[in-house]
Amino acid sequence: MQDPKRRRPRPIQDTEEENNLLEGRNAVMELLRSGQDCDKIFVAQGTRTGDILALAKERGVPVVTCDRRKLDGMSTTGNHQGVIAQAAAHAYASLDDLFANAEAKGEAPLFVLCDGIADPHNLGAIIRSAETAGAHGVIIPKRRAVGLTAVTARASAGALAYMPVHKAVNLPAVIDTLKARGVWVFGAEADGTVGLYDADFAGPTAIVIGSEGEGISRLVREKCDFIVSIPMRGRVNSLNASNAAAVLLFEAVRRRTCGK
Amino acid sequence: MQDPKRRRPRPIQDTEEENNLLEGRNAVMELLRSGQDCDKIFVAQGTRTGDILALAKERGVPVVTCDRRKLDGMSTTGNHQGVIAQAAAHAYASLDDLFANAEAKGEAPLFVLCDGIADPHNLGAIIRSAETAGAHGVIIPKRRAVGLTAVTARASAGALAYMPVHKAVNLPAVIDTLKARGVWVFGAEADGTVGLYDADFAGPTAIVIGSEGEGISRLVREKCDFIVSIPMRGRVNSLNASNAAAVLLFEAVRRRTCGK
Repeated sequence: MQDPKRRRPRPIQDTEEENNLLEGRNAVMELLRSGQDCDKIFVAQGTRTGDILALAKERGVPVVTCDRRKLDGMSTTGNHQGVIAQAAAHAYASLDDLFANAEAKGEAPLFVLCDGIADPHNLGAIIRSAETAGAHGVIIPKRRAVGLTAVTARASAGALAYMPVHKAVNLPAVIDTLKARGVWVFGAEADGTVGLYDADFAGPTAIVIGSEGEGISRLVREKCDFIVSIPMRGRVNSLNASNAAAVLLFEAVRRRTCGK
Repeated sequence: MQDPKRRRPRPIQDTEEENNLLEGRNAVMELLRSGQDCDKIFVAQGTRTGDILALAKERGVPVVTCDRRKLDGMSTTGNHQGVIAQAAAHAYASLDDLFANAEAKGEAPLFVLCDGIADPHNLGAIIRSAETAGAHGVIIPKRRAVGLTAVTARASAGALAYMPVHKAVNLPAVIDTLKARGVWVFGAEADGTVGLYDADFAGPTAIVIGSEGEGISRLVREKCDFIVSIPMRGRVNSLNASNAAAVLLFEAVRRRTCGK
């Protein structure tokens, strides 16, 4: 029987910007390769499509050839390279999916938690770096942050097709859950208590990346087990958010493959 | 007496896009702090300028308050935050300047060579990462690449003010010069002969980052001493150019501060 006191979660409303269009040869190719659902592919007349047509045929995905101006009108990235795929609406993953992904690989979880990334290029690049570093999932907040838009998908260079992304209503609550399940949570900030090369990323790890302007929000920061700092050897005191994520993720790769 | 056989270098022609406008609070603040020449600062009415006005006064830089629409019209980034500085035209550095920068710090040179980066956000982020990693200079080609535009400057979050950038007519020739001066040149590509954690970045080092679409060009690649690869643990086989640069640069920091 349902507990009447348990509030039903509000349904996640996809904003218009999450229009599930993937643009560009690379992104469309990776979508087809991934086995994810794809409704249709639009190709501008005279476009060099490489293996896309053959793979679309093999996968039974309809291809519509049309005027380039039609694609220009659909495009939100302004760089569709003559190919746009209409993917099935991107399915967000549950937190369990992220843990299951790590378990299936027999690895200690490695997650990236983005606290308010506003720029879809940054979010896409973070998803790309997370995928190449062998991370098992990315967590983004539902509010005051960019979601999985066409620009995000394109900036991920296809990595979004392989990387489960969980959209959390409440990041501090997610961190509590992660900690209860044995994950160590490392916030990345300038004034950390742990240096990058002293952080033990070999165990179950979540790396928290703050927003471009504001860094990590206070409530999220208070929940972190550690604040880890990338050594700053110049006069500018922070990295671009996606660059910081890449440095932290590949330090985790080094820890996990080379030991201390 | 002048040697008549010595050809005078052709003056570098600033393209229109290198309009020496710096946009946004952070970029303008760093420009003022850096001590670089600044002709004028435009501030939109009602903008919160923080310490910018006091510092501009201290530095004797005229501040012009005007309508926000004027700044909108000047802006090429679309994100000026109500503050635009007209800097003196960005002076490119000579290769000697880059070496002198390393020597002044008593450090083995650490340079980044960008082989055809087209996206000013990427170039700006690379300059920012290079500066925070304590690198001594960035080298970009004169042709078929983005230069130091307003978008580049803004994406560098002020790092451009501290980081000497050399614009090379011919990258392979520059690599010959670097090698003759004792610098080891590491190209970053997927199919490398050296793993990231085996590359000795402690000595004089230049890291070559290829373009977003094409990677490192053939002529440049042939000149590299080593091809070094970031370990790829996912299914997507490359990082965003600026993310790759950050990972390589901070592996150099680790080598230089923690040893092998």
